[in-house]
Amino acid sequence: MPKLLILSSEADKYSKLIQQANLPNLEFVTDATQCDIVLGEPRLLREQLAHLPNLKWMQSMYAGVESLMEPSLRRDYILTNARGVFGELMSEFVFGYLLAHEKKIFERFKAQQDNKWDRFESGWLRDKTIGLLGVGSIGAHIAGVAKAFGMKVWGYTRGSETSSHVDQYFHRDDLLKFASGLDYLVVVLPRTESTNQIINADVLNALPSHAVLVNVGRGNAVDEPALIDALNQNKIASAILDVTAQEPLPQDHPFWATPNLLLTFHTSAVSYPEDITKLFVENYHFYIEGKPLKYQVDFERGY
Amino acid sequence: MPKLLILSSEADKYSKLIQQANLPNLEFVTDATQCDIVLGEPRLLREQLAHLPNLKWMQSMYAGVESLMEPSLRRDYILTNARGVFGELMSEFVFGYLLAHEKKIFERFKAQQDNKWDRFESGWLRDKTIGLLGVGSIGAHIAGVAKAFGMKVWGYTRGSETSSHVDQYFHRDDLLKFASGLDYLVVVLPRTESTNQIINADVLNALPSHAVLVNVGRGNAVDEPALIDALNQNKIASAILDVTAQEPLPQDHPFWATPNLLLTFHTSAVSYPEDITKLFVENYHFYIEGKPLKYQVDFERGY
Repeated sequence: MPKLLILSSEADKYSKLIQQANLPNLEFVTDATQCDIVLGEPRLLREQLAHLPNLKWMQSMYAGVESLMEPSLRRDYILTNARGVFGELMSEFVFGYLLAHEKKIFERFKAQQDNKWDRFESGWLRDKTIGLLGVGSIGAHIAGVAKAFGMKVWGYTRGSETSSHVDQYFHRDDLLKFASGLDYLVVVLPRTESTNQIINADVLNALPSHAVLVNVGRGNAVDEPALIDALNQNKIASAILDVTAQEPLPQDHPFWATPNLLLTFHTSAVSYPEDITKLFVENYHFYIEGKPLKYQVDFERGY
Repeated sequence: MPKLLILSSEADKYSKLIQQANLPNLEFVTDATQCDIVLGEPRLLREQLAHLPNLKWMQSMYAGVESLMEPSLRRDYILTNARGVFGELMSEFVFGYLLAHEKKIFERFKAQQDNKWDRFESGWLRDKTIGLLGVGSIGAHIAGVAKAFGMKVWGYTRGSETSSHVDQYFHRDDLLKFASGLDYLVVVLPRTESTNQIINADVLNALPSHAVLVNVGRGNAVDEPALIDALNQNKIASAILDVTAQEPLPQDHPFWATPNLLLTFHTSAVSYPEDITKLFVENYHFYIEGKPLKYQVDFERGY
């Protein structure tokens, strides 16, 4: 009989939702040594990893599982992460901030505070080019919404070309060519060795000066001193960072007051128990039927 | 030979664009008494209306043509207005402001200014209900983008039910029922007798207290004192007004400082000469072939 351990600050909520799903044969346990299945937050699992002799499958509540990727950690279990649930939330965040930029929402509010009927013109998304650095399920959703706004969509990936909403794909050495044609660059990368500081001074120089950078992936992707230079020198128009290398951002970090930089404190998407439970239920049925699970993480690749 | 008069502050730009289109037989004139066709801004045409003995067709550069609707003005010509070109622009505006509200973009910027890594949660558009008061070509475009964000779409119209993106239509006496089920109410109405103050105290009371009102139609649709009351008493969460009864808004108008009210100074969509020229060229071909023109205004209905 499969035995489930829930490792989450919202364990009660998850427990209730999963009980409502009436999964066949599933037993809930709180004794870590007994479980073969864990549903939880990657960091909490990492603390327990040495004490789970029967672990066979872990369903992560998050997309990012980097805390379980260290080569010294065991890999003798199936790790599945949360995918397909963040696309909608990430799209809302990305287009909210791109539109705030183009519609000059802060500037217009300032005009209202000054009692000025000031009809300066908005910019527009339509016909502009959005570049997605990373096109997994989140990037694909952003691409779909971009199409609803009449935009051109470019994607830079390792090799995959799976989203039909991407007009042009770039790979390998074409990163600067990709960047140079963009109006907006949206980073949706997981934290891995190969994504470290991929947004470096060369990429920032390649972007047009009116370009906007949005990072909703992981903070490691950005060379932070290079970004501060780029913004101070108006090499790009604006940056919206939902993630930073250190979180919470240290109080003395220059990002707090870098011009044209907006911080959003890792709020662009959250894991809703309802969404994650749906994923778990689907995978649980595959698990008890001995079928391959959905969204399995490749420990070598790191996502 | 058809003779075209252009009445616009951007007449030079329009003239150039239309010349590039190489329209058969078209002659450009600046003497108003000679023209049979006018391409222009409704208010400028209105000034000239008495001095155009040969006028047969006016292509308006705007959607709103209320300045030509007064019963005392002549109606012995075909009036076509600009449609199908503002949907994309209006959608960007509407979703920019709805997302700014849900993502708490102003509040997050305040947190950054205060050096606070404050992870208060965002609201979301997905699964919410957007109500369109008026579903012409603009409303239909907004409905399509709403679907890309996973929203439910309701529409209130006189009788038409033409957009496939609208999940539920309401008519006649169902205005309050329509309002009571909405998270967002977007007004996309032309100025006519029957749209005067349609957003009155009853409608504002019917809206849920978390609802957001967006008016991108015409200012006459809103009972302004009732809206000020509703916002002061938190009967609705927020209002975004691109249009007001008087424009520019008088300096002593309470809207400048009404809580949770954002003014955007009639900038939600602009007429781009490239877009309008395309419409004109298409209709010119119908005109010289004696065929019905696109987007003909009904003087009785007022739009």
